Amino acid sequence: MSELSVYEVLNRKRRGEPLETAVIQEFIKRYTAGTIPDYQMSALLMAIAINGMNAEEMATLTQAMLKSGEQWHLRDQYEFIADKHSTGGVGDKVSLVLSPWVAACGIKIGMLSGRGLGHTGGTLDKLEAIPNFNARLTREEFDRCVADAGCVISTSTDGIAPADKKIYALRDVTGTVESLPLITASIMSKKLAMGASALILDVKTGSGAFMREYQQSKALAKSLIAAARGSGTRVEALITDMDRPLGVAAGNANEIAETLDVLRGCGPKDVEEVTRAQAVRILVMSGKFDEASATKTLDDALQSGRAYTQAEKWIAAQGGDPTHLPQPRETIEVKAPRSGYVTFIDTYQAGMFAVDLGAGRKKADDVIDYAAGVMFDRRTGDEVRTGEVIARIQLGAAHRDANELRRWLLSFVKLGDHPPPARPLVHEHLTR
Amino acid sequence: MSELSVYEVLNRKRRGEPLETAVIQEFIKRYTAGTIPDYQMSALLMAIAINGMNAEEMATLTQAMLKSGEQWHLRDQYEFIADKHSTGGVGDKVSLVLSPWVAACGIKIGMLSGRGLGHTGGTLDKLEAIPNFNARLTREEFDRCVADAGCVISTSTDGIAPADKKIYALRDVTGTVESLPLITASIMSKKLAMGASALILDVKTGSGAFMREYQQSKALAKSLIAAARGSGTRVEALITDMDRPLGVAAGNANEIAETLDVLRGCGPKDVEEVTRAQAVRILVMSGKFDEASATKTLDDALQSGRAYTQAEKWIAAQGGDPTHLPQPRETIEVKAPRSGYVTFIDTYQAGMFAVDLGAGRKKADDVIDYAAGVMFDRRTGDEVRTGEVIARIQLGAAHRDANELRRWLLSFVKLGDHPPPARPLVHEHLTR
Repeated sequence: MSELSVYEVLNRKRRGEPLETAVIQEFIKRYTAGTIPDYQMSALLMAIAINGMNAEEMATLTQAMLKSGEQWHLRDQYEFIADKHSTGGVGDKVSLVLSPWVAACGIKIGMLSGRGLGHTGGTLDKLEAIPNFNARLTREEFDRCVADAGCVISTSTDGIAPADKKIYALRDVTGTVESLPLITASIMSKKLAMGASALILDVKTGSGAFMREYQQSKALAKSLIAAARGSGTRVEALITDMDRPLGVAAGNANEIAETLDVLRGCGPKDVEEVTRAQAVRILVMSGKFDEASATKTLDDALQSGRAYTQAEKWIAAQGGDPTHLPQPRETIEVKAPRSGYVTFIDTYQAGMFAVDLGAGRKKADDVIDYAAGVMFDRRTGDEVRTGEVIARIQLGAAHRDANELRRWLLSFVKLGDHPPPARPLVHEHLTR
Repeated sequence: MSELSVYEVLNRKRRGEPLETAVIQEFIKRYTAGTIPDYQMSALLMAIAINGMNAEEMATLTQAMLKSGEQWHLRDQYEFIADKHSTGGVGDKVSLVLSPWVAACGIKIGMLSGRGLGHTGGTLDKLEAIPNFNARLTREEFDRCVADAGCVISTSTDGIAPADKKIYALRDVTGTVESLPLITASIMSKKLAMGASALILDVKTGSGAFMREYQQSKALAKSLIAAARGSGTRVEALITDMDRPLGVAAGNANEIAETLDVLRGCGPKDVEEVTRAQAVRILVMSGKFDEASATKTLDDALQSGRAYTQAEKWIAAQGGDPTHLPQPRETIEVKAPRSGYVTFIDTYQAGMFAVDLGAGRKKADDVIDYAAGVMFDRRTGDEVRTGEVIARIQLGAAHRDANELRRWLLSFVKLGDHPPPARPLVHEHLTR
C-alpha cells in the first residue's frame, strides 16, 4: 500500500465504500509500526465512526488488531477455559462473583480485565482495593493462578493487542469513541488474543450503560458475537439491566465486601441473579452441563460454601488479604425527604457521583480512593418512609460538604407515589 | 475551549450537528498556533467532509481562516480593483488573457494565483515559462505593478491565510480534498484576505473540472458566493464549460503563446469568448459600464491592439521576456485513424496526459518542463479526414516513445460518425 493508496483508502471510507481485507490488515500493521501517522489514522477512525463498517470489515479489523501482538491460545492449553466481558456499569461486580463460583463447579475461568472508564467502575480497581492483591500477573503467574485456584483476573499485558492500545488512545482524543465497529474491534481483539474456549458477554442496557437504548445494546451484542466468527472461541451474550446500580454497593472496597456477601449467600439477590445467568451459560458452553444441571451445580456450590472458599483461595493465590479492606473515614446518611417509592436512580449520574467521591478517575493519572463509594440501601422499586435512610455516602481521604452531597444524591435518586414498572434483570440471551 | 471541549466539538461534528461561530474560530486559531494537533484537525476535516456544513458554518470557517494571517484590504487602497478565480481546468489561460485586457479598459485587476494541481494547469506555472518572469512579488512590488501596468499576477505570500496552507497540506494526505465546505473555505479565505472590490469566479463544469456534474459545479458556485456574504467584496460567478480543453494549447509555454495570439485577436475563439464573458462582468461590477458599453470597450481594446500592448507592458513590469519562450525539442504528430468528427475529448485524461509529459507535477517537488504540452488542432465537434493531423504532442527534455503516446492520446480523443450535440461555453451567470 503506497502513500497514494493510503489516500485512496481514506477517500473510499469517506465515500462510505467498504474496505478490502488486505487493505484493513495493511493499514493496522503500518499504523502499529508507526509508518502511518496519527493524523491519517484519526481521519480513518472518524470516517468509520460516521459511515460504519459491514460485518466482514469488522471481523477483519478485529483480527488485524489482535494479530498486532501476542496470542495466548489458551484453548489449546486447557481442555476448557472460559472468559467473560462486561460492557461496563455501576456496581457491576459480576466478574468478581462469577470467577470463584464457576471455578467451584470445576470449570476454569480466566480474564484480562480493565480499569474504570468514565462513569463506570473497573474490575481491576476493585480488586486492587484488597490489600496486597497482585493484578499485574505475568503469563506464568496467570497459569499458576488457574492451576492453584481454578480462576484468575489480571490486567492485560503490553503484549496483547498493541494496535488497540494505540488506537484507543487516539479515539479518546478525536471524538471517535462512540462507534459500533470501533468498540467491537477494541473489545474483541483483546478477548480473542487471549483465546479462551468460550466467552460470555455481559452487554449492559439502560441509564448506566454506555449503550443506553435497548436496540443499541442488542446491536452491540450481535456485533461482538459476529466479530468472533471463525475465531475458535465460542461466544454468547446476555443483555442485562443497567438502568439501576447492580447491588447496593458502588465503589471499590465496598463492592469487594458485597462480592463476598453474595458468595456467602447473603448478598443482594440482583447480583446473584445476573451472575448466575452468566455462570449457567459458561457451564453449558463447557459441554459438561445442560441448563438444569448447571443451575443445580451452581446452587449447590453457593449453599455449601464452596463458592466462598474458592474465592478465599483465589484471592490468596493473587496475594490478597480481604479481611482488612479499606474502611470509610466518614459515612453520610441520606434520608428520604418524603414517603413513597424509589422510582428511578439515574445510573449514569450515580456513577459520576461515585467517581467524584474518588471511587473512579476523572483524569488518567488520578489516584483511586478505595474506601470511597455509595451504598444504595433503598433501591429502584423499594418503598420508603420519610426520614428513613435511603443511601449512605462513604467518604475516604477527602473532606466533603455533607449537605451538598445529600442534595446531589437526591437529584438523581427519584422518589414518587407509585412503584415503577418492573424491568427484568436479564433481558435477552443471544448466540448470534 | 478546554481539551474536553475539543473532544466535544469532534463528537458533535461526528453526529452531524452544526458548530457555533466561536467554536470554529477558536478551533482554527488553536490549530494554526499548533496547540491543536494534526490528528484532531484531520478527524474534524473528515467529519466535515462527510457530514457537511451549513452556509453559516462555511462563512465562519472562511472568515476564521482568512483572519489567521495578513489582510490586504485592497479595496480601501484602490478606488476599484478586481480579482478573479478559476476552479481549474485544462488549457485554462483565461487569467492571462483577462488581466491585460481588463487593464487596457482602465480597470485595475490583481490576483494571487496558484500552481497546477492534479490534472489541471496552474497560472503561475504558465507565467514562469516566460524567461525571467517574477511571480514571487512582495506586497510593495505587487502595488508597483498595478501602478505601472494596471494588472498583476503573483503567488500568494506566506502571510496570506496560513491556516489554509496548513489545512490544505493535511487534507491532501487525509482523503478530505473532495468536500464542498472545505473547498469553499480554502478558496475564499485566500481571496477575501486580499480584499478586492469585486471578484469574478470562473467555476468549471464537465470532464476536465474538479466538479464534473453540473449540479455540483452550481452548488460550488453558490457556496463560494455565500461564503463572501458580508465581506465587502462583491462576488459573481460564471459556470463555464470544461468538458473540452479550452483553446488549442495545453501546457505552459504553448499556453503563453496562445494567450498572446488571443490578445492579438488571432487566437482560438473559445478562449476569447470565455474571457470576454468574465471581463464584461468585471467592467460592470466596477460601476463604470453597463453590459453593452463593457462589451464595446473590450472589443475596442482588442481590435485596436491596446490589450496586446498592455500585456507587453504587464509582462515587462514583472521582469519577463515573452519573445524567447521555451520551444519543444521534438513534436509528434497524431493523425486521424478514420474520417468523421471529434465527438469527445476526455479532458481529465487530456490533463493527466499533459502532466505525464512534464507540463505538471505528479509529486509536489517535481520540476515542470515548460516546453512540454499538447496542441489539440482538431477539437470537439470538428470534422476530420483519415490521415489529417488532429493533435501535436510537444516533448521537452524527456525522450518518449512516439507510438505509445499516440495510442494514449487516441484513447481519450474520441472520433465518431456524427458531430456531438453543441454545448455552450458559458452555461450560467450567478450573483447569489
